[in-house]
Parts: sequence; C-alpha cells; structure tokens
Amino acid sequence: MTMQAFDELMAFQRDTEALAQIAGRLSWDQETMMPRGAADQRSDERAAMEAVLHQRRIDPRVRDWLEAIPGDDLSEHDRAKLRLIRRDHDRAAKVPERLATEIARTVSRGHVTWAEARADDDFAAFAPVLSEILALRKEEAAALACGGNLYDALLDKYEPGARGEDLVAMFGALRPRLVALREAVLSKPALPGLTQSFNERGQMKLARLLAKTFGYDFHRGRVDKAVHPFSSGSGDDVRITTRTVPLDPFNCLYSTIHEVGHAAYEQNVDPSYRLSPLGQGVSMGVHESQSRIYENQLGRSRAFCGWLYRQMRDTFGDFGIPDEDTFYGAVNQVRNGYIRTEADELQYNLHVLLRFDLERALVAGDLEAIDLEAAWNDRFLADFGFEVDKPSNGVLQDVHWSAGLFGYFPTYTLGNVYAGCLHKSLTAAVPDLDAQLAQGDTSAATAWLRDNLQQHGSLYQPRALIENATGSAPSEEPLLRYLETKFTALYDL
Amino acid sequence: MTMQAFDELMAFQRDTEALAQIAGRLSWDQETMMPRGAADQRSDERAAMEAVLHQRRIDPRVRDWLEAIPGDDLSEHDRAKLRLIRRDHDRAAKVPERLATEIARTVSRGHVTWAEARADDDFAAFAPVLSEILALRKEEAAALACGGNLYDALLDKYEPGARGEDLVAMFGALRPRLVALREAVLSKPALPGLTQSFNERGQMKLARLLAKTFGYDFHRGRVDKAVHPFSSGSGDDVRITTRTVPLDPFNCLYSTIHEVGHAAYEQNVDPSYRLSPLGQGVSMGVHESQSRIYENQLGRSRAFCGWLYRQMRDTFGDFGIPDEDTFYGAVNQVRNGYIRTEADELQYNLHVLLRFDLERALVAGDLEAIDLEAAWNDRFLADFGFEVDKPSNGVLQDVHWSAGLFGYFPTYTLGNVYAGCLHKSLTAAVPDLDAQLAQGDTSAATAWLRDNLQQHGSLYQPRALIENATGSAPSEEPLLRYLETKFTALYDL
Repeated sequence: MTMQAFDELMAFQRDTEALAQIAGRLSWDQETMMPRGAADQRSDERAAMEAVLHQRRIDPRVRDWLEAIPGDDLSEHDRAKLRLIRRDHDRAAKVPERLATEIARTVSRGHVTWAEARADDDFAAFAPVLSEILALRKEEAAALACGGNLYDALLDKYEPGARGEDLVAMFGALRPRLVALREAVLSKPALPGLTQSFNERGQMKLARLLAKTFGYDFHRGRVDKAVHPFSSGSGDDVRITTRTVPLDPFNCLYSTIHEVGHAAYEQNVDPSYRLSPLGQGVSMGVHESQSRIYENQLGRSRAFCGWLYRQMRDTFGDFGIPDEDTFYGAVNQVRNGYIRTEADELQYNLHVLLRFDLERALVAGDLEAIDLEAAWNDRFLADFGFEVDKPSNGVLQDVHWSAGLFGYFPTYTLGNVYAGCLHKSLTAAVPDLDAQLAQGDTSAATAWLRDNLQQHGSLYQPRALIENATGSAPSEEPLLRYLETKFTALYDL
Repeated sequence: MTMQAFDELMAFQRDTEALAQIAGRLSWDQETMMPRGAADQRSDERAAMEAVLHQRRIDPRVRDWLEAIPGDDLSEHDRAKLRLIRRDHDRAAKVPERLATEIARTVSRGHVTWAEARADDDFAAFAPVLSEILALRKEEAAALACGGNLYDALLDKYEPGARGEDLVAMFGALRPRLVALREAVLSKPALPGLTQSFNERGQMKLARLLAKTFGYDFHRGRVDKAVHPFSSGSGDDVRITTRTVPLDPFNCLYSTIHEVGHAAYEQNVDPSYRLSPLGQGVSMGVHESQSRIYENQLGRSRAFCGWLYRQMRDTFGDFGIPDEDTFYGAVNQVRNGYIRTEADELQYNLHVLLRFDLERALVAGDLEAIDLEAAWNDRFLADFGFEVDKPSNGVLQDVHWSAGLFGYFPTYTLGNVYAGCLHKSLTAAVPDLDAQLAQGDTSAATAWLRDNLQQHGSLYQPRALIENATGSAPSEEPLLRYLETKFTALYDL
C-alpha cells in the first residue's frame, strides 16, 4: 500500500518534470524562434502552462502520498526525491493563491516599466513599482519563512539551505582583497586588446569547436543565436545560445564556454535520474560554479589560451596579436566598467557584492526603493573608484529586481567561490592539467567534474555536494588565492 | 450565477486552447529543431502533455458548467462555443480511460512496426498489429456512436457532421469520370518536364516569395525545412515547413503554397476568436479546401504559371523550358505513379477513393486486415491500369492506418470537392481573376476566401460554412468540370 503511494507519487512527479521541460523549451523558443507577432499569445500560453505546473505543485494528492510513505526502508535516492518533492510542495502551498497571482501581475508590469525607465535613464519612474514588487516579495518571504529570516526565505529558492548570514561572512572576506587587487592592477599599464573586426561565420565556427572541446553533446543539444546567451533544458534536450559582436569575439567564445558549463552539468546528470526530482542541477550557485570553472579557471587559463590563440589564427589569420602571452593578456584584460555582465573575472564579484548588500538592506527595511539609486551610486564609487554616469549604467542595468528576483544575485558569487574550491581540488587530482589544456584537451578536467559533481544532479544538498567533491567546507580562500596569483603574474604586481 | 458559469468555463477553455497550442508547437519542434538524442525524452513529454489535455477535456467541471448555462439569451458566437466544448467533452468522456490508453500504446507500436514493414516491403509483418488497431478503433467507434454507424463516428472526429453514406454518393460520382479522364490523358503524348537541377538557395528564395505572394504573414509565422511539409499552430503563431529536392523544385514550391493555404486559414480567423473554440479551422476537409485551392486552382492555373515562370527564370536563368505554355504543361504533367502524395491534381482523388472504400470495408467487417494487401492491389489495377510492384508503393505507403487514423482519408477528397465549389464562386465574384494571377497578384482571391470562409474559424459547421460561402450545397460537379476543362485543353483531348 505504501509502495503504491510511492509509485503513484513518482509517476505524477515524472509528468510534472516532463511538463516543466516543456515550459522551459517554450522560453527557449521565445528567445530563438518565435515570430515577433506571437508575443501576446505566448504570454497567454505561458500563463496557462505555469498554472498547470502550480496546480500540480500544490495538488493535495502530493501531501497525501507523502504522508502515506513511511521514511524507513527507503534508499538514499528515494529519500532525496521525497525531500525535494516535499520542499517544492511546501513552498508552493505556503504562498496564498491571491499573493502568487498579484506577484505575477506586478512583476509583469514591473518588467515593462523597468525597460522603459532604463531606456529613459529615469530611476524615479521605476521606483514605485519596484517598491510594490519588494513589498509583495517580502509578504511572500514572510509566508515562507514562518517566523525565520525573510532574506533567507528568498535566497533558499535559488540556493537551498544557504543563509544570508553565512554569505555575509564569506563575501565580507572577499571584498577588501578584491578591492585591493583591483586597485593594484588598474595602477599598472593597460594590456593590449583586440582592435580588429571578426566575422560572424568564424566566430560561430569557433564557438562550435569550443562547445565540442568542452564536451557539449550535440546529439542531445543544439546551439542557436539569441540576444542573451543562455542554457535551457535538462536530460537529453539541453540547448544553448550564444551571440556574436564583430569587435568582441571573446563575448561569443566565452559566453559559449560559460553556457556549455551549465549545459554539461545538465547533460552529465546520471541518466537514471531523468525526469525525476534528481534529474537537474541542484542550485543556481552550483550551476554557476560549473559555468564559471569552464569559462574562467579552464577557458581563461594561460595554457588553454595558448591553444585558443592557435585556433583563432587558423580561423582569422593574423589579427594583430603577436603571440600567445599577449593573447592571454587580451583575454584577461582588466578595465574600468559599469556593467556586471561585461566585467572581468577580477571585478565581477564586486558587482555582485554591491547588489547583495543593497537587496538585503531593501528586504530588511533598512533601505527604501526610492533611495536605491543614491545608495547604489555611493557604493559603486567606494568599490570602483569612479562615479556612475547614468542609471542605465548603474541601478537600472540588471533585469533581476524588476522580475522580483531578490536573493538571486549572491548565487553568482557563491558559484565563483565554489568554482575556486573545485579548481583547487581539480588541479590536485589532475597534476598535468595545464599540459592537457595547452593541447585543447579538457577531457580529464571535465571528467573529474562529471564524476565528482555533475552526475549527482540534485541528490545532495548544494553545500554537501561541494564538500563531497572537494573534501572540505566551501571557503572563499581558494578563489582569492587563484585571482591574486593570476593577476599578480599577469600585471607584474 | 449562470454568467459566472459561462465565464469560468471560457477561462478554463482558454487555458486548454493555450495548452493545445503548446502541444502543437512541441510537434513542430520535434520535426524541425529537436536534437536527435532527445527522442525518448520527448515521448515522455508529449505523453504528459496529452494527459493534461485529456484530463481537461473530461474534467467534470466542464459538464457542471455546461449544465449551469441556459441556452437562451446567448449570442450565436457563444452558442457555437458551447456546442464545440460540449462536443469535445462528450467525445472524450465516452471513451473509457482503459481503451484510450490501450489505443495510444498499440498505435505507438503500430507505427514502429509499420515503418519496419515498409522498409522490408513485408505487409504480413504489419497485418497483425493493424488488426489490433482496427479492433480498438472499432471499439472506440462503438462507444462514440451509441448505436449509430461506426465509420461515421470515426469520420466525425475529422469532419464534424459528415456521413459516410453522403460521401459514398459523392465519391461514386467522381470515380468513373476521373478514371475516364485519366485514361484519355494518358493515351496522349507526355508533356515535357524539368530535366535540370535547381539549387536549394534559389528554391527557398522562391518558396518565401510564394508564401508572401499568397498572403502568408511572416510577422506571425516562420518557414523552416522538414522532411514532410506541414503547417502548425493557430492565431498569431502559425508556422509552416517545406523541403527541397534538387531535381524537383515544384515539390518545394507547391508544398509551400499548399501549406500557406492551411496557414492562411489559421492566420485569417477573426482575431477576437483567438484561444477560444472558434479560433481555428473547423475541419480537416475545409482545411484541405484552402490548401488545395491555393495550390491548384490558383497556383497551378495557366495565369499564375506565367508569372511563376518569369520568377523562375529570374532566379535560375534558362532552365530548359522555352515558354510559359510549356512551363504550364510541366507544372501539370500527368504521369503514372504509385504514390498518393506525389500524385497530380487529376489522379490524386483516385488514390483517396481507393483508401476510403477499403477502410470502410475494414470498419464494416467486410474485409480483414490480412486481406488488405490483395484488395488494395486489385483496386489499384482496376483504377490505374497497372500493377502495384511492392507494398511500399502500395498498401504500406501511408502512415495513417498505422496511426489508427481511420476516417481521415476522405477529408482529402472532400477538401478538393469544397475547393471546386469555392473556386466556382470565386471566379464569379472576381471576374478578372486570371488577369490578376498573371501579374502574381492573389490579393483579391485570398481576400474573398478570407472574408467568405477563413475569418469564421469554427463558428459554422463545415457543410454550412461552404454553403454560406458558395450559396449552394456542396457538390462534386464543379471539381469535375474544372478538371475536365483544364486537362482537356492541356492535353488537347
């Protein structure tokens, strides 16, 4: 009788996971294939699909099944599945229908308002709806937190088990050393960069070569172009997108490696987990650790840059960079900039830390939405040493808050921290990693990540997963050491 | 209170329609974009989506809402919506869950078996599963028919309100005159055809030009390549596919016009019907009337062929056809052939009539599955005057029966009959149609079809729709007159 409940729940969940894959592919289609005139109809379609998924998450039968299954005698895998199903059900059931609907409606309006405000460089036009979104998200957080910390309740959605307080300590250790490293690097002469234009065909050819080089399985995926690169789907249908900018081929190439990191995580999950709660990456932070270690610790290493330089010469001929060392510098240039998504490895986390501190203050009620622009500009000046010139280069640059995504930003830096830990263990496990990367061979590195992390899907909690893979608790120290070593050498500090 | 029931039902139905659009796009994706390795996962996704749609169709709330709404005081539109919802609900509710599941499972196996049997040219390998599928479909038909005619119950799914008996009379009038016309034409010397190869780029360029020329709205659609051309979707997202064959550019060009006919029907439905039961084409037969009148009566006319000849000259240069008249003959060549989908306008319906008579005999129990091959071959010889050489050119050529689609074939010929009726009215309404087509201008013709037929979506029953548009009951006579006139002139009979 109890195993019947288990089997019924798993069959129900399997359909839910399959429907979630369809919903995800609908987003992929929207960004890559959808005719422009279909936008309104698509909103209706997505809303209908979301309603179906929501109804399944709060379906009372899920609660009944969960209660009918005793905890003992279950395998580790089955316990993990039940834990994840219960988590989803509880989160969904705690949020009143009215609130969920109001959030969806306000966020939709918020997104449009944000886009207009950004185009007009007018933060005041966005502040009122941001204030509404914030209030609704806080109400949701209160429903989820059951008396606990509001920010943690939001963060938990993207990074199960993470606590804001732990991140404050970790990020607090990152900030001064990153600021100091940044100042030291920018006091030195700039490294030469690219100056030519690179045709789209060559960029896309190299992007495909890089995807293959990093183990992307084209038989179970495809590469298309989109305005913003992303990875979509789980299991046997994981698609990525990239983009080309004539003067900046690194945008295309490193976006591709980044998305392949996300996609490889999904493609390498144990096939027996497919369409189960274990069948996808476990958190945003762990996902970002994979995209970033592929992109940065591997893809932007001196060894791999040597190989990539030769590929670019083969594709584009002489493009004004005389040798591998100069190319390595061009790939890793550190320059002043306003925009998070365009930031280099060194400065990227400073952009995230700024957002993390501001959004915690917003959720705690220590900062009002209307005061966010001033707070942003002050903090930016403090960490980056120059003034924000306009809101579209500052507080209005990111879509996240307009979409109600509070608690999402810190997972970017957590991912980088995890990548630092994993890289430390990886280099110990594969002593001749650099020699392999210099030949464009990532197979030992990606196999290590697959075996120690990716294959497990959502079986373990994020923090435990990293601990299992690295043998020690996550720490910011490996990332800092890595960055300090790399940029000290590169800029001759 | 009753209007609340109406509103709730319409909101529910709107989500159902939106989900049906998503399910349709999933099929589109499978034929155009899906990575090959995703096939198994996709089966699970589609099954989950079908289960959601099925559950919504049989949802007991639909019955409750329908009962709570009184019939009086409703507009014609609202009455039509309720009629269509009730029809879907009743059909779905009449079929026991067990039977629906068994049909799905057997059809899935049937399709695989058919594909293998066709590759091996071995009908005996397919006959047993065909027999199972037939028995299950007959069981379904009995559940639907409630004592009425079994074949009509199957036919009704594709052509609401149609009756096999009426088609027997109509098709009985078609057959002898088509056989006689075919024999007369094939006793004359063959017309010259194309002999060169045509590059893919030029074919696709012309395909897009033709789509535009026939009024396809690219802003709310897109054209891709697929193994089998099709049209997919309703409202603001209607996509078509085509294919290219180097030696046969007419395959690409006329497939495109054909699919544009289907797509234009969907795109031209009154926008206020979007995501309602009225928001799509009303039946397979009416749909086929649009694809066929675009493709044949307009696209293969002497006038339009003149314009198309000049476009092909512009695109490919001299391709061995000296003038417009010769080109018109090449487009409309009549040749012996085994395959329905490759048949010309004259012979096409003979292929359909053969299938219609055989499947009626199967459903009536007058013919056993195991005897189908012999019956096919006899009938083919009788109508076409030569022997079938192998099952893949005969009884195994079409996918339909392996998919359980009994009652589907006659809608093809019904569509051609409807196209004949519509064409007769169209030429009366647009006296200078040929002069317009000679300039590549289809706007008056497509506007007439839009205003008199397409815009109504599913508001009227199929037969009533044709009667409203043409002013008289559907008849095979206009199609026969059109074909006899056209081919008598072309072949100098």
